[in-house]
Parts: sequence; C-alpha cells; structure tokens
Amino acid sequence: MAQNIYDTPEFFEGYSRLDRSVRGLDGGPEWPALRALLPDMRGRRLLDLGCGFGWIARWAVEQGAAGALGVDLSENMLARARAETADGRIRYLKADLETIELPQESFDVVVSSLALHYVRDFARLAGQAFGSLASGGHFVFSIEHPIYMASMRPEWLTTAEGGRTWPVDHYAIEGPRVTDWLAKGVQKQHRTLSTTLNALIDAGFSIRRLEEWSPTAHEVAARPSLKDELERPMMALVAARK
Amino acid sequence: MAQNIYDTPEFFEGYSRLDRSVRGLDGGPEWPALRALLPDMRGRRLLDLGCGFGWIARWAVEQGAAGALGVDLSENMLARARAETADGRIRYLKADLETIELPQESFDVVVSSLALHYVRDFARLAGQAFGSLASGGHFVFSIEHPIYMASMRPEWLTTAEGGRTWPVDHYAIEGPRVTDWLAKGVQKQHRTLSTTLNALIDAGFSIRRLEEWSPTAHEVAARPSLKDELERPMMALVAARK
Repeated sequence: MAQNIYDTPEFFEGYSRLDRSVRGLDGGPEWPALRALLPDMRGRRLLDLGCGFGWIARWAVEQGAAGALGVDLSENMLARARAETADGRIRYLKADLETIELPQESFDVVVSSLALHYVRDFARLAGQAFGSLASGGHFVFSIEHPIYMASMRPEWLTTAEGGRTWPVDHYAIEGPRVTDWLAKGVQKQHRTLSTTLNALIDAGFSIRRLEEWSPTAHEVAARPSLKDELERPMMALVAARK
Repeated sequence: MAQNIYDTPEFFEGYSRLDRSVRGLDGGPEWPALRALLPDMRGRRLLDLGCGFGWIARWAVEQGAAGALGVDLSENMLARARAETADGRIRYLKADLETIELPQESFDVVVSSLALHYVRDFARLAGQAFGSLASGGHFVFSIEHPIYMASMRPEWLTTAEGGRTWPVDHYAIEGPRVTDWLAKGVQKQHRTLSTTLNALIDAGFSIRRLEEWSPTAHEVAARPSLKDELERPMMALVAARK
C-alpha cells in the first residue's frame, strides 16, 4: 500500500495551511497550465486520481462535466471533499492508486494533480488509466519533476559566485526518496522523465504535451518567490491521449 | 549561421582524439541505445543531420540501407568522411542545419548524433525533418540533455557529505550556453526537454521513445568513468515517427 501521509495529523494540518489548500485551485501556480491541457469538460466523465479536497471535480462539474469521480487514499481529504463539494454529479471513492482496478472505458478524462509521484508502480496505473478511458480520452496530470526529486539532498546550493543552483544526483537510480516536508519521513517515488513518458507510450497513449512548468514574467512579478522556478522545474505536466 | 567550431583547428584536433573519434561508433557509450531506437535499415534511405565522420552512414549501408546522405557544416568532418567512407551509396553535403531546405518525402530514416543542441531553431529543423520523411518514417536523435547543459557553470559540486552533485540553474531560460570544451567559447543552445518534445509533436511527429541515457552495471564495470552518468543524464535520445 502507498504511504498515507495525508492522514498523519501533523502533515494534514501543515498541508491545510498551504496556499494551494487555502485558496483552492488558484493557489497552485501551475493550475492555469494544467487547465490549458484539459479538454472542454462539457458532457465529459471525469476521474481524478488523488483528488484531495475535490476541487478539480467541482471545477469540472461547474464547467459542465456530466459527472466526476474523485479517488483518494486519505480519509481526511475525502471527508473534507465530501463536505465542501457536495453535488449530485460528484462521487468519491477511497482507494489505493497502487492496487486500484478501474472500470473499462468509463471516463473521457483522467486527471491527477501532484499525486502520481507517490505511486511506486506507475506503469500499472498508466495501464489502468488507459483501460478506463473511452477511445480518444485524455490523461492529464502534474507530478513533481524528477529534476526536483532526484537528489539525496534536494536543497539549494550556493555557487562560487554567490548564486543559487539546484543539485541533481542519483537521477538514474529510481526508487523511494524520503524528505521532511510538513512531516518527517514523507516518501515519494523518483522516476526519470523517460520512465514516465515511456510507460504512457507502452500503455498505448500518444503524448500530446509535456510542460516543465515555469512562471511567466507577470507571474514572477505578482509572486516574487516563484523566481526559483526559473532555475529548475519543480513540476512536470503531461497530456496524453488514448 | 550556426557556429562552426569543428573547423577551428584546436577544437578539431581535440575532437579527433576523443574515444568516440578514435574508436568509431563503439567509442560512444550511448551507441547501443541509439542503434536500438533505429529501425531495420535494409532498403531504407537514411539522412544524417550533423554526420561528422560519416560513421552512421557507413553503418547504415553495411546494414543494407539503400542509400545514405550525410549533412554537416564542417569541411574538416566532411573531408574525412569522404575519404574514409567512400561508397557509391553514400553522399555528403555541406549545409547549415539552421537554414537547410530538405527535399520532400525523400528519406525513411532521419538520424542525428549529438548535433541538434548546436541548432538555434529546432522547431524549424523538426519541420524540415518531418517534411523530408516518407509516411511512417523515423526521426531518431541524441542530444546533450538539458539537465547537463542548463547551468551557467556546468561543473560537479561537492555536497556537505563529500559526495558529488550536478548543478541545475537557469533551466527555464533557453538560449546560448558558452563553455570551454576542447576550445574556448563553444556555443550550444539550451532548450528544455519539453520544448524539444513539443516541437516534434507540433511538427506532426508522434513520440515513440525517450531515453535519458545511463549506463548498465556491466558498462560501469567495463568503464568506471561512466559512473558519473548515473548521477545526472548527459544525453537524451529521442525516437519519433511520422
């Protein structure tokens, strides 16, 4: 089973105070880019893998989606999702993305926001996502970028000139990466970008877009802390199609 | 016009002494991986962009290719290619990859080995490659990986624990990167991996494979210096199809 760090009280409380938890989808600086990769939602059936508070599900039905199913392992997240996004078109399901068995050809869009880097067996899940989509369906997700995750000590370094640079090591060595973020011992699964993209191709998807998210000049002006994201990509956004 | 560093005597002499120049294709540790991305060459028409000494062209006709055209900007490289790979099925052409106009639907395979990271306008060249291929044709190439190229000071750093880590900075800021490698002021063109892949998709290609090349345990045992390549990818190999 995947680590369920979101149900650790310390982690959940910290997570709940993040900008992206307080402000909703607009609190995630990458949301406009992820949204741009999604198709017109009108009449579509959405599946959200690692749905958290259910905001993408709610957004989708507001956009005219026929229905949305949010899947998460965290009771805390699902309880808040059910309370805050109550809508006859939205359902929630507790399940582990490592072992979930999805119904065949039941969705038009599978989405996932910053959840799949917790999954060990991405190839299996990509196969499940492919099977669950109708022909022509979309798989759109964000993950932590492997450049961001690879190092055994992912912290800024100072260069000889006094600038900042991001360390990359152990990139080819895939597997768990343990960091202290909001709580001690948060376990993520490092994979190269090629492993992720090739798993999609092997599952049958065609790759439509890769975005190594970075802010625009306007976004940096509005939120100066985003300047770091020009130095090394923190997130990768992928759009694939069945 | 692209910088023609290969015709700088100092650079050409240094390049000619590299393992990959002395030993042929087998001197490049990534060659088995690049070869594995290429289709069966029998009866195919090959175009090599940045053909250097012509070794891929020679390999292709040895494998049964119907013909091979090698393109390079360097007189030095082309002179040696013509002298060492004389074969009625191989032709060479001096041209700049920034401005080359390729004939329509004239090749079955377009290949390029460690040349395209010198090209400023990759989107234009991807469009040229697409147009030059017959339907179903293959575009297979290696480039320096943007993780390797991005930093303003691409040199190993020592970690607090005494290990080595590779710096990544300015990743989102595309454009020239000037390094001293074999000669002073060698100019390469940094692009994110997403820019490269999206340019292929926009040109009409489907992405078949991405390899962020790293050595096997056997290869590290045979050539211990390759251990560095587990830390950060030096090369990206891409296979796309029309």
